[in-house]
Amino acid sequence: MAVWLLRANMKQLDWIAVDWGTSSLRIWGLAADNQQVFYLASDEGMASMHDAQAFETTLLNHVAAYLPTDKSIPVLCCGMVGAKQGWHDVGYQALPCNPLSQQASLRVPDTDPRLKVWIVPGLSQQSPADVMRGEETQIAGLLSKLSATQLFDGMICLPGTHSKWVQVEAGEVIQFATFLTGELFALLGQQSVLRFSISDSEWCEGTFVSAVKEAYANPAQLSHLVFSVRAADVLAQPQGKHGKARLSGLLIGLELAGAKGLASTKQVQLVGNDDLTKLYKTALTALGLAVVVQSGDDLVLLGLQSAYQQISE
Amino acid sequence: MAVWLLRANMKQLDWIAVDWGTSSLRIWGLAADNQQVFYLASDEGMASMHDAQAFETTLLNHVAAYLPTDKSIPVLCCGMVGAKQGWHDVGYQALPCNPLSQQASLRVPDTDPRLKVWIVPGLSQQSPADVMRGEETQIAGLLSKLSATQLFDGMICLPGTHSKWVQVEAGEVIQFATFLTGELFALLGQQSVLRFSISDSEWCEGTFVSAVKEAYANPAQLSHLVFSVRAADVLAQPQGKHGKARLSGLLIGLELAGAKGLASTKQVQLVGNDDLTKLYKTALTALGLAVVVQSGDDLVLLGLQSAYQQISE
Repeated sequence: MAVWLLRANMKQLDWIAVDWGTSSLRIWGLAADNQQVFYLASDEGMASMHDAQAFETTLLNHVAAYLPTDKSIPVLCCGMVGAKQGWHDVGYQALPCNPLSQQASLRVPDTDPRLKVWIVPGLSQQSPADVMRGEETQIAGLLSKLSATQLFDGMICLPGTHSKWVQVEAGEVIQFATFLTGELFALLGQQSVLRFSISDSEWCEGTFVSAVKEAYANPAQLSHLVFSVRAADVLAQPQGKHGKARLSGLLIGLELAGAKGLASTKQVQLVGNDDLTKLYKTALTALGLAVVVQSGDDLVLLGLQSAYQQISE
Repeated sequence: MAVWLLRANMKQLDWIAVDWGTSSLRIWGLAADNQQVFYLASDEGMASMHDAQAFETTLLNHVAAYLPTDKSIPVLCCGMVGAKQGWHDVGYQALPCNPLSQQASLRVPDTDPRLKVWIVPGLSQQSPADVMRGEETQIAGLLSKLSATQLFDGMICLPGTHSKWVQVEAGEVIQFATFLTGELFALLGQQSVLRFSISDSEWCEGTFVSAVKEAYANPAQLSHLVFSVRAADVLAQPQGKHGKARLSGLLIGLELAGAKGLASTKQVQLVGNDDLTKLYKTALTALGLAVVVQSGDDLVLLGLQSAYQQISE
């Protein structure tokens, strides 16, 4: 277990925002004006919790010192904490919907009297079958940021282990698609026969961009193109030295080919961490799309703030 | 280690044929008329050998009892035994070529005086970069079987961990492509988020065929379609119960979409074991292609026999 207390000040705690994913936990203590009283991050993700009670215990371990004695503090959580294997299964909102509809968040039963805990539900789509959990909060954050003057229409891309492409019309999510890009990259790069050609490879931007274009133009060849990463290395070809960049480009190119049909606009809102958004920006720009980069971390908190307004109203 | 001695009779040993792959070893002791003196199979594949010497020791452990004292017995091996990590690196023949060209097999140095060992080289293609090792012997076996009256022209599919699609003209391999289908199936089915939806699933032929057609028609959507295996299960949709059949169909459908451009004919020679060829036959037939199924095991031995004629001439 590793925990980092990143900020703390003396303001009075009004509520707590929590982003609880599979492998990480982030907690913001917030004042009534949404200034941060404290912020901490830890690697105690859902995967390291042994049962539902462990979530409450872990949360209390981190926040107990900040809690007042005379009232219970609202806690609003998003992420895998609301899955079947999480603290409490809060299900999914069915599309089309506002990503954090009025009163969608569900109260978690049987918690310590010092806390009142809510969890944000995910989003589900029946056909084609798809689900998301966690990203809906970033989307809500983005919509609250962009919709100051008018309701947002457009395409959002949230790259990651399970990348999401999300079509929004007039502030409602009307369709989305998940691509297994990050998980495929990890499995192929670390566990397939390609691993021998990935571990020592040098990053090369040109190879990455070529590979994006190659898979985008020939998605049917994907599992063949991927094998060529290994073959080029075995045959000692120059591109064999850039296995990681090539594999990354091929898989992102496949994702972009798949998302092409979804894209209703020429501009994509790209939400994620610095490394991933940089990679996707390069790929999307190479294919002629305009990109606006947004910080995924900032949007989670913005989304939780906008959901908190609803439960506290 | 598990070893099975499957057949033995009293004929005089003339030579030994060996198929030595990553995870398995098969040895045929053959008389001058190619009748089998003995046949044994073991799980002592290349992956369980610690160094080059281990190959010779392992082989001798199995065959020493059959060796005469007055002469050395020729041994002809194919498979990963000829790779860089194998007994001796015998490289690749460059395309276009006869899959086992005259005198292509290389003599392995420094072996026990009771044995004279040769290894069959693989095949390589410069652009697009591709390699095979082991399959060239099955192809040679097929060509010797089919070319009794005239040189074979056509398409061969060898499904497996790394499926091969091979175009042959007038008895020469002129082009081939490797697809990572089997490895993707194992990684996604056992190690990705899909594993939760695969382990308990019931096989369903209809789901398999639908999935083949779906990926064949929409290869760009592959990493999205694959995620739908999980999503359908989470949403408790009927197809969620057939995760394994759906994943298998999607990956084979992608391979067939990729091989479409290669197929010069409407008929495919399908080479492999019973389970895999049955699956691929179903998929290819559903897409309107005619299939001739060939036993991969029989063709390895036929290929080694035809290569042995060359070294013994």
